Amino acid sequence: MLDSQMKIGLDAVEETLTTVIDSDVETLFDASRHIISSGGKRVRPRVILLAYLAAGGEMITDAVDAAAAVELVHTATLVHDDINDHSALRRGQASVHKQWGRTFALLTGDYMFAKVYEMMSPYGVECNKIMSSAAVTLVEGETLQAAAAKKGEMDRETYKQVIERKTASLFSAGARMGAVIAGADDELKEALTTYGHYLGVTFQIVDDILDLIGDPEEMGKPAGLDMAQNRGVGMTVNGSNGHTAVLEAPAVAADPIEAMMAKLRSSGAVDIARAEADRMAQRAYDALENVPPSPARDELSRLVDMVLDRKK
Amino acid sequence: MLDSQMKIGLDAVEETLTTVIDSDVETLFDASRHIISSGGKRVRPRVILLAYLAAGGEMITDAVDAAAAVELVHTATLVHDDINDHSALRRGQASVHKQWGRTFALLTGDYMFAKVYEMMSPYGVECNKIMSSAAVTLVEGETLQAAAAKKGEMDRETYKQVIERKTASLFSAGARMGAVIAGADDELKEALTTYGHYLGVTFQIVDDILDLIGDPEEMGKPAGLDMAQNRGVGMTVNGSNGHTAVLEAPAVAADPIEAMMAKLRSSGAVDIARAEADRMAQRAYDALENVPPSPARDELSRLVDMVLDRKK
Repeated sequence: MLDSQMKIGLDAVEETLTTVIDSDVETLFDASRHIISSGGKRVRPRVILLAYLAAGGEMITDAVDAAAAVELVHTATLVHDDINDHSALRRGQASVHKQWGRTFALLTGDYMFAKVYEMMSPYGVECNKIMSSAAVTLVEGETLQAAAAKKGEMDRETYKQVIERKTASLFSAGARMGAVIAGADDELKEALTTYGHYLGVTFQIVDDILDLIGDPEEMGKPAGLDMAQNRGVGMTVNGSNGHTAVLEAPAVAADPIEAMMAKLRSSGAVDIARAEADRMAQRAYDALENVPPSPARDELSRLVDMVLDRKK
Repeated sequence: MLDSQMKIGLDAVEETLTTVIDSDVETLFDASRHIISSGGKRVRPRVILLAYLAAGGEMITDAVDAAAAVELVHTATLVHDDINDHSALRRGQASVHKQWGRTFALLTGDYMFAKVYEMMSPYGVECNKIMSSAAVTLVEGETLQAAAAKKGEMDRETYKQVIERKTASLFSAGARMGAVIAGADDELKEALTTYGHYLGVTFQIVDDILDLIGDPEEMGKPAGLDMAQNRGVGMTVNGSNGHTAVLEAPAVAADPIEAMMAKLRSSGAVDIARAEADRMAQRAYDALENVPPSPARDELSRLVDMVLDRKK
């Protein structure tokens, strides 16, 4: 029953993502289609659909546009990130920036964000306050990260702020909107919001670990990319600082980034980050204690397992 | 009475614009404050506030957040435009792109757009549909323009599409939202939407004319900038094409852009564009025939005069 509902929901999200991008402006259509059809884990839509069901929602199609919108916000930020990071690859294929150039990548991100706003508008005031507030917070997180990268320093407190704002904000907003659309009471909304928050934090820590030790082929992007750009977990361990360390790497090293990664792997940074991910995951599990038992709640719990165990 | 209401409204818009940008992320705060406090004609907030009053609205403060949001959408697009155009100057001072660099300019535009969404969310479904649809259309217009500039060709039909989408969309959305917030009936909403559309078209044609013949000092930006980037009215006259013409200008010309501008000025392009602006302005006046007489309606009419007559 849950499986079939989720299949209906996720298929509809996919359908919505491909049909909502209907611009008669060729570049916007092509570039948006390109990034959307390149896959992605669709973990955010899964969160909102499951939260909706766990909160007692019975018409999963009611949450589909919001679920697609959450994925589209995320996709828009990827398109803009790739401009700032000069990334040529995204999800194993050319980034929009690489294929269409900076101007059109910037406009494609803007377009997708405007479409999100358009998709969300029928949901009314409460959902739109949640989503817009998450969008503001997300941009703040990206900016904190860029500012820290520019200075070449990111301490643990900044790292925490960055991942809470740039990643957890959208996960918690999605979970909360699922609850709102299902008509949940305040207590249940809070429980699912908290769940989403800690799932998001866990997700980002694991993401940053994978940047260090993941298989580049499976990841669809070069390893060490985030670290090379002064982001992520490598910078936050024991005051070590990726940028400085890269600069300090012996000039004879063939590949200073690889040298830095090896150093971080052996420094225990990954183990420390992994322990932090486990702690954050536990808080997500704990939040589910305040959600009535149901197959959807069990699946939200398994989603935490999946996020912890993912390899790409 | 109208004057004092408009003063209250416009002062409140200014107050809202400066206080809504309240991020604790220093760069977003500073860069947003920089562009917002650099002035601007505030013609879009004026349109929405006057439309609200002309549609019978009595609490002008009800329309202030929407009026500020419309100005902020416009401001966000300026920040992103300046990235794409490599513009160092905006409103006579350093562009955000120049002062903070590309990454932070991109994020500042994103931030301002997210704030717009946040400011609009309390207005409910109808206004948010209008505003989000205008945002989508605006980005489409910008993209059409960038695509035409890249190809080095912009025919009259494309130019019409570009100015309707990138400029008129926000003017007509503002006028319509003013009517909606005032509780106007469908006929009045339509009349004010049509007014806003043609005011916006007129505004943009005049803007493009000023790019050719305006006083750079008064404009706060170099003359010929748009033309140099293959935009605007210079490209649309008699099939002439700014880009080609610049390339064709004798290599000995000290300043090929100035040479091209002189050629356009003497070609009659400006006169043709001016006649078109007058025609579009007439349609804006005509639309006001379907709005009940009031001091606010008279002021909307004077706004068309101002847009036609402006020197910067």
